[in-house]
Amino acid sequence: MPSIQPRVLKGFRDFLPDVEMARASLIKKLEQVFALFGFVPIDTPVLEYADILLGKGGGETDKQVYRFLDHGERDVAMRFDLTVPFARFMAEHAEELYLPFRRYHIAKVWRGENTQRGRYREFMQGDFDIVGTDAASADADILLTAAEAMTALEVGGFSLRINHRALFNRFLARIDALDKSVEILRTVDKLEKTGPQATAEMLATLVSPSLADDILSFIQKEKGFEQTLEKMFGFCDPGDQEARAARARLLDIMNFLAAAGAERHIVLDPSITRGLDYYTGMVVETSLAALPEIGSVCSGGRYDELASLYTDRKLPGVGASIGLDRLMAALDAIGIAAGSDISTQVLVINQEGAPGTELHRLAASLRNAGFACEVFPEPKKTIAQYTYAERKHIPLAVFTNAASGPFTMRILSRRENIEITDFTNLCETAKRELHVSA
Amino acid sequence: MPSIQPRVLKGFRDFLPDVEMARASLIKKLEQVFALFGFVPIDTPVLEYADILLGKGGGETDKQVYRFLDHGERDVAMRFDLTVPFARFMAEHAEELYLPFRRYHIAKVWRGENTQRGRYREFMQGDFDIVGTDAASADADILLTAAEAMTALEVGGFSLRINHRALFNRFLARIDALDKSVEILRTVDKLEKTGPQATAEMLATLVSPSLADDILSFIQKEKGFEQTLEKMFGFCDPGDQEARAARARLLDIMNFLAAAGAERHIVLDPSITRGLDYYTGMVVETSLAALPEIGSVCSGGRYDELASLYTDRKLPGVGASIGLDRLMAALDAIGIAAGSDISTQVLVINQEGAPGTELHRLAASLRNAGFACEVFPEPKKTIAQYTYAERKHIPLAVFTNAASGPFTMRILSRRENIEITDFTNLCETAKRELHVSA
Repeated sequence: MPSIQPRVLKGFRDFLPDVEMARASLIKKLEQVFALFGFVPIDTPVLEYADILLGKGGGETDKQVYRFLDHGERDVAMRFDLTVPFARFMAEHAEELYLPFRRYHIAKVWRGENTQRGRYREFMQGDFDIVGTDAASADADILLTAAEAMTALEVGGFSLRINHRALFNRFLARIDALDKSVEILRTVDKLEKTGPQATAEMLATLVSPSLADDILSFIQKEKGFEQTLEKMFGFCDPGDQEARAARARLLDIMNFLAAAGAERHIVLDPSITRGLDYYTGMVVETSLAALPEIGSVCSGGRYDELASLYTDRKLPGVGASIGLDRLMAALDAIGIAAGSDISTQVLVINQEGAPGTELHRLAASLRNAGFACEVFPEPKKTIAQYTYAERKHIPLAVFTNAASGPFTMRILSRRENIEITDFTNLCETAKRELHVSA
Repeated sequence: MPSIQPRVLKGFRDFLPDVEMARASLIKKLEQVFALFGFVPIDTPVLEYADILLGKGGGETDKQVYRFLDHGERDVAMRFDLTVPFARFMAEHAEELYLPFRRYHIAKVWRGENTQRGRYREFMQGDFDIVGTDAASADADILLTAAEAMTALEVGGFSLRINHRALFNRFLARIDALDKSVEILRTVDKLEKTGPQATAEMLATLVSPSLADDILSFIQKEKGFEQTLEKMFGFCDPGDQEARAARARLLDIMNFLAAAGAERHIVLDPSITRGLDYYTGMVVETSLAALPEIGSVCSGGRYDELASLYTDRKLPGVGASIGLDRLMAALDAIGIAAGSDISTQVLVINQEGAPGTELHRLAASLRNAGFACEVFPEPKKTIAQYTYAERKHIPLAVFTNAASGPFTMRILSRRENIEITDFTNLCETAKRELHVSA
């Protein structure tokens, strides 16, 4: 009798081959895009000292962190994002690296969140950042990379909704509400969830009702990028140097994006604030036209100091994070199979009486010719071997008694058999049929 | 002042881009080999219920496991290998899958081992298994896949040293030492480390000195596969059905390997026992000709029941595990760079006065033409941009004021500049130069 019930922890998942291949295919596409833009991969440990990951800590995130004492009584924790380890990494390795440093990191992170909201406790992020530069060119590159990633993943229509933290802050400064900026940002950040009416009421508890109206007006999108930008700037003091710089920065970014042919994906959306994050400049969220309700699938922004907790060295940067699980769920909901490029192409059928040595000789020849191939290990009934092929989405099966032929090829999708005399013809037919079924 | 010293836990490592790209390249080659043999990928959670991972527990491994109570007071642990989670996975999902199931899983595992022996506490394994069949064909496929993997990784000469557990056990049965098989296996398993003299002495504490000599004689390799096999069989009772079946199995495996052209990599080595593991049939270890002292880089064998802790269903199988960290260290020691195929190919130099829009327009055109490309984000001194390119191993740099040209291309390795009039020529020159530098 088995003594242990096989099960996984709540919020954790197994990935069966179809889903894992879809995930691998998605990761591969992202890696290709990251490489095209000059990002290089890094990796960091899953476990770190808790003080490294949590800093002085005490926030909402801390409660969700998997933290424990290890065998050496060290206070350790599993990473809950890829940004904090990256900050520690840059502080530790800046001398060995070159700046600006463009890295990507696609890996799992862990948070003991409430799973009732459909969240996972083990999930995967794909972060890409350019660290060591304040330039608008780097901001543009992050947005271009995000746009290229969405295009490569064939998610359908999408918008990169961008904004600049300073415009909002300078507007708040003008209405003497800068001291409440955290609460206001947090309220505005929930606009889509709570709706304008409730947001106005919440804002009116923080500022006067008329200023609450101004805030709601400020965060309205106008028709085009420049109209929105001028409306926002109009709410600031026209002599405010910080607001002027933010306006100039957004225009620079937009010009670079237009030059690279990506301006159609960009929306200036003053309601995007990334309220709880540490961003200091441009911020971005990415929404899918087919599934606006799932929220942002790629979010990020510019930060002044990545690693100030760990080093005196100033490391400004810009980056974004792709939520792979949300994106996979979205692709699934839209009905886009991420597709996979690796699975057995040819099954060598094992018939009673066919010499196993000949079957293995044939399989080796087929692999040498580039076909992903396997020998069914036992002479089970043919129908069982067909079923196996169908379950595994193997398109072709081959019967033979000799590696040199003759062969019978079974096209499983059409339930059709083709007689083939020699190995050269076998390869040609397989190639043609795989092309048809691809 | 930074308040936290950036550091990683003992036994844990950061992977900087060069090493991470080498690892990614190694993983990619393994995945291609696995796919060629019909293996499909899966993934399982890093954290599992402790009882799932440790079973009834109490062994040496248990002390090394990262185990703690989570937020819900659940007794959880980080996986310490990929076999136990796979057993749980098969017990849970056998109905959804097809048998025989060929899976691979390349992922990190964690053990709080003594790091003084040069071991890591976070390391990566690449497991591949065929579950749901007892056939010799599957044993052969595991060995063929291992051989193909070593060939693909270009590790130089290597040997798959195989054996069959039953031959050793039936020999022990004949000398009435079967009850001491665990201790004897464990002693023999350390032969390479302790040497024949010490092994003989240790064996003589378990059996009579003359039987100790027999055991040492049994585990000697002879000239060829068949000679070794007959010697081993000669130590067993000739009427012993189990020994006969083991001999027949080894011959079948060898015939399949010969048919597939891989027999030159196989050595029958009676000293290979995988002493502490749960194997019941064929066992294998892989040694590199250039670095025999580092031990096995790919080990495995056949097991009767993968998942008996979790299910009544009988799941016999065969598999092996590649130690990626040991393999990377070996490749490094042998002087074989794993190489990488992704990094920036063209750096667009940012000169004072060159319009950023034109640089981004050019970069977008180069990417459309398939070149991995980045714009240096700020107009720093040319020498600083060259240094950046060299540090990042970027072979080509381009100067321009307009995306349509004219251009100056800098071949960084030769410190040579080429004048180019238009974009078509730019692409052709870049292609040629990248081919030269590849």
